[in-house]
Amino acid sequence: MVVHRKARDYRWEGVTELPYKEDDRALFRSVTRQVLFSDPAMQGELRYFEVAPGGFSTLERHAHMHAVLVLRGRGHCLVGDEVKQIELRDLITVPPMTWHQFRATAAEPLGFLCMVNAARDKPQLPSEKDLARLASNAKIAAFLRDEPEDSSL
Amino acid sequence: MVVHRKARDYRWEGVTELPYKEDDRALFRSVTRQVLFSDPAMQGELRYFEVAPGGFSTLERHAHMHAVLVLRGRGHCLVGDEVKQIELRDLITVPPMTWHQFRATAAEPLGFLCMVNAARDKPQLPSEKDLARLASNAKIAAFLRDEPEDSSL
Repeated sequence: MVVHRKARDYRWEGVTELPYKEDDRALFRSVTRQVLFSDPAMQGELRYFEVAPGGFSTLERHAHMHAVLVLRGRGHCLVGDEVKQIELRDLITVPPMTWHQFRATAAEPLGFLCMVNAARDKPQLPSEKDLARLASNAKIAAFLRDEPEDSSL
Repeated sequence: MVVHRKARDYRWEGVTELPYKEDDRALFRSVTRQVLFSDPAMQGELRYFEVAPGGFSTLERHAHMHAVLVLRGRGHCLVGDEVKQIELRDLITVPPMTWHQFRATAAEPLGFLCMVNAARDKPQLPSEKDLARLASNAKIAAFLRDEPEDSSL
């Protein structure tokens, strides 16, 4: 077991950085993932996601929860019907079966830690109907087209 | 469920900061704790510990693991027989039943996130015999008297 892994500019020794392939349906863009802690003796996992400027994480929902802490930069997130400006060290809780997405600004990367249960269900992607329902909320629609209303932050 | 909790200078909205009482046996000094995420639906918990300049966390061991990420400052840690300089964003894994302690420098606070299983055993404190065995290692002895060998960092 490796006791100590040093960090260099948000990349950790001995941790593979997994790029996400670009998605034709534009459900996510320019996200990398590093699994920081995952061990059979731990019931939680801790991952680091980094969204490049202008990128966004997958719009999804699932039964398991996300516990998120912003580690780098700032951006916006959608959680359920709420769009939030988020910045360094903010905490975001994603409750079960709640649509959520994280977006970087155009100016800088958004990096965040995410704790999840090691044993968890697979994410669900939104149907056309789900997307239409989400977009019926003006604030969410603005978020989804990368024009969050409070982008002055 | 509160979705978004903002951070102000390493203190989080709606999170109680729990001071540790000073300990006569000098097993810990000047540590605060904030539980960032704890929910019945999550099998892990995420806490933030902050050790004031010159302070140190409890010297202890237990069957559950710790998954640590340095969020503020730098310092040193003991994990088993290893003394490590640690700095911003380093990862530290504390294996089961392994003596461990975190120390701030005299100059600045040391803050770290710690993921644990929500269901976990209580920590064990070292006996006099345990302390003597640890102190028989010169590097550990220096760490325990707050003079880690590589303190030039």
